[in-house]
Amino acid sequence: MAKASPLLKDELDIVIPTIRNLDFLEMWRPFFEPYHLIIVQDGDPSKVIKVPEGFDYELYNRNDINKILGPKASCISFKDSACRCFGYMVSKKKYIYTIDDDCFVAKDPSGKEINALEQHIKNLLCPSTPFFFNTLYDPYRDGADFVRGYPFSLREGVPTAVSHGLWLNIPDYDAPTQLVKPLERNTRYVDAVMTIPKGTLFPMCGMNLAFDRELIGPAMYFGLMGDGQPIGRYDDMWAGWCIKVICDHLGMGVKTGLPYIWHSKASNPFVNLKKEYKGIYWQEELIPFFQSVALPKDCNSVQKCYLQLSKQVKAKLGKVDDYFNKLADAMITWIEAWDELNPSTTPNGTSK
Amino acid sequence: MAKASPLLKDELDIVIPTIRNLDFLEMWRPFFEPYHLIIVQDGDPSKVIKVPEGFDYELYNRNDINKILGPKASCISFKDSACRCFGYMVSKKKYIYTIDDDCFVAKDPSGKEINALEQHIKNLLCPSTPFFFNTLYDPYRDGADFVRGYPFSLREGVPTAVSHGLWLNIPDYDAPTQLVKPLERNTRYVDAVMTIPKGTLFPMCGMNLAFDRELIGPAMYFGLMGDGQPIGRYDDMWAGWCIKVICDHLGMGVKTGLPYIWHSKASNPFVNLKKEYKGIYWQEELIPFFQSVALPKDCNSVQKCYLQLSKQVKAKLGKVDDYFNKLADAMITWIEAWDELNPSTTPNGTSK
Repeated sequence: MAKASPLLKDELDIVIPTIRNLDFLEMWRPFFEPYHLIIVQDGDPSKVIKVPEGFDYELYNRNDINKILGPKASCISFKDSACRCFGYMVSKKKYIYTIDDDCFVAKDPSGKEINALEQHIKNLLCPSTPFFFNTLYDPYRDGADFVRGYPFSLREGVPTAVSHGLWLNIPDYDAPTQLVKPLERNTRYVDAVMTIPKGTLFPMCGMNLAFDRELIGPAMYFGLMGDGQPIGRYDDMWAGWCIKVICDHLGMGVKTGLPYIWHSKASNPFVNLKKEYKGIYWQEELIPFFQSVALPKDCNSVQKCYLQLSKQVKAKLGKVDDYFNKLADAMITWIEAWDELNPSTTPNGTSK
Repeated sequence: MAKASPLLKDELDIVIPTIRNLDFLEMWRPFFEPYHLIIVQDGDPSKVIKVPEGFDYELYNRNDINKILGPKASCISFKDSACRCFGYMVSKKKYIYTIDDDCFVAKDPSGKEINALEQHIKNLLCPSTPFFFNTLYDPYRDGADFVRGYPFSLREGVPTAVSHGLWLNIPDYDAPTQLVKPLERNTRYVDAVMTIPKGTLFPMCGMNLAFDRELIGPAMYFGLMGDGQPIGRYDDMWAGWCIKVICDHLGMGVKTGLPYIWHSKASNPFVNLKKEYKGIYWQEELIPFFQSVALPKDCNSVQKCYLQLSKQVKAKLGKVDDYFNKLADAMITWIEAWDELNPSTTPNGTSK
C-alpha cells in the first residue's frame, strides 16, 4: 500500500529557537522528519547544536543573522526565544509551524500520540468564523456543523491565518501564578478548535503555533526582548495582539484549541518574574491600546497595517515608556528586512 | 452522614414547557426532585398533563395565562415552546433553569450521569470574562487559571447572567441542515465552559438554559411565535440576541459549553422548514441589526435597555416586515406584564 504523503510537505517549514542540542526531535521524528526545519540558535554562536540524524535543516546563529540582515539585525532579539521570528523571515514556504524544544508529543484521551502538526494544518486549511460564535465550535470538523440560528451568509467563513495550539502538563502561566500554584498541571483535554471572534484579543503563546506566512507573516514579529531590553516573555503576546487586530481588519481568522503538545519543563518563576514585571504593568495599558486600534481602510496589506500600527505604538505608547519608541522603530526595521528577504511581495508592501 | 443540600434549592425554579405527560422527569428525579417546577402547558388547556409523583410543581395552561395577564397575555406565544417565558415571569426565585421535555440525562466520557443543573449553577455562581479570551477557557474551573498575558485588572471578571448548555446526540440544527445531514449526531464531549466575548453574538438554544432572573430576567422574552405568527423556532434565538447586547451593555457575562443533556428526538425537518423559512431570510437582517445596536448610557437597567431595544426594533426592522412592529409592541407589553408581576423591581424599571 502506498503511504499517504505528509500534508503540505513542501509548503511548510518548522521553526525552532534553541540554545541546546535538539534531542527532543527524536520524539517528533515520525511527524517532523518529512519537513524542513529552520533552527534559530540563540546565545553563544560558537556553541555547536547537535541535530539528530535524518532531519533536513538549516541553522542560523547570531553571526548568521548579523551577516544576513546587517544593521537591520537590530530588530531580532538576542538571548530570548523571540529570535525565532528570524526563521519566519528567511523561510520561503507558505506555512510556518513553530515549537519550543521543551515540548513533547502529547497523547489524546484514548492514549494515541497526537500529530500536532497535522492538526495545525487542518486548522489552517479550513476557514474561520470570526463574525458569529458557533456553539458547537469549529463547524467544519467532522460531526459538527453550524447550528440553528447561524446566518447562512456567514457560513463560508474567512481564510484562517493563524492556528494557536495548547499544552498539556505545564500550563503557560505568568510568574505570579506560577509562584502561587507551583504544582498546577493542565490535565484537561478539551476536544475543540474555535475561532477567536472579531474584536476579541487573546494571549497568543508561541510554543505551539502555526500560521500562513503569505497571509500574516509580516505581522508575526516577536518584538525586542531579552539582552539589552527591559522585558521578556512578552514576545508572543505582542505578536498575538498585533496579528489579531490586523486579521480583524483584513478579514482573516485566528483559531485556538487543538492540537495539544506536552509541555515538559516549568521555567523558573523567579527568573520569569524579573523578565515579566514591567510587562505585567505595561499590559494594563497595552490591552486598551490594542482594543481601540483603528486601522484606516487604505491599509489593505499586512505590511501597510503593520507600519500604521508602529506609528500608533509610537504615538500612544511612547509615553508609557521609551521602550515603545524603540519597539516602534524596530517594527519598521522588521518590515524593511522582511521585504528585502521576500522580494516576491510587491515593493509597495502589498502581499501576494 | 448528612447529605449535602442541593445547591440553591430555594432559589431556583425549573421551567418546563410541554404538551404531554412529563414522564421524562423520572430520569431527572435524582437531580430535579428537590427543586420547584413551573410547568407551562401549551396547546389545548383541557388536556390533563400527568406529572410523576413526588415533584413539587405549579402548572399553568393557556386559561391560567389569560386569567393572570388579561389583555397582556397577547405577548405570550401559543402553540410554541416560546410560551415557556411565562414561567420566567411568574417565578419568584432568583434563578431559572429551563429544559425541554425531550431532553434526557447525558453521560460524561467516564460513563457518569451528568447533573446538568449542578453545572449550570456552578457556571452562574462564578464570574464571566467577556473582555479578553482565556485560551484555557473558564479560568475559574479547578485545574485552570488565567494564562500568561491575561491582564490582571480583568481577572475578577463580571457577574454571570446566563449559562447556555449543550446537547449530545441530536444536534440543534436548522431545517436545511437537518435535511442535508439527517443522520448526524453530536458525539463530541467538549470539556469546556467559556464566556462568549463582548461584542459577539451567538445562537442561544432554549432547551438547556439557565439564567439569573434578577440580572437578566426581563430580557428573557421568547417573542411571538407559533399560532397566528409567521415564524417559529426563533424564540430562543431572538432572546439570545437581545440578552447578549444587553449583557454587553450592562457588563454581565454569558457562558456556553458544559453541561450537556441528551437530546433524544429529532423534530420533523419539513415542519421545521415551514416554521423557519422566514426566519432564515430575516436573520440576515437581524444579525447586522443586533451587531450595530447601541444602547445609550442612561439605559442602566434591563427594563430600560429592553424598552430601548424595542424602539430600535420598530425603527429599523419594521421595514423588513410588519411582524417586527408587532414584536416590538409585544416587547413593551412583556415588560409591562413583568413589572406588574414583579413589583419588587422599582416602578421606573430599575432592577434590584
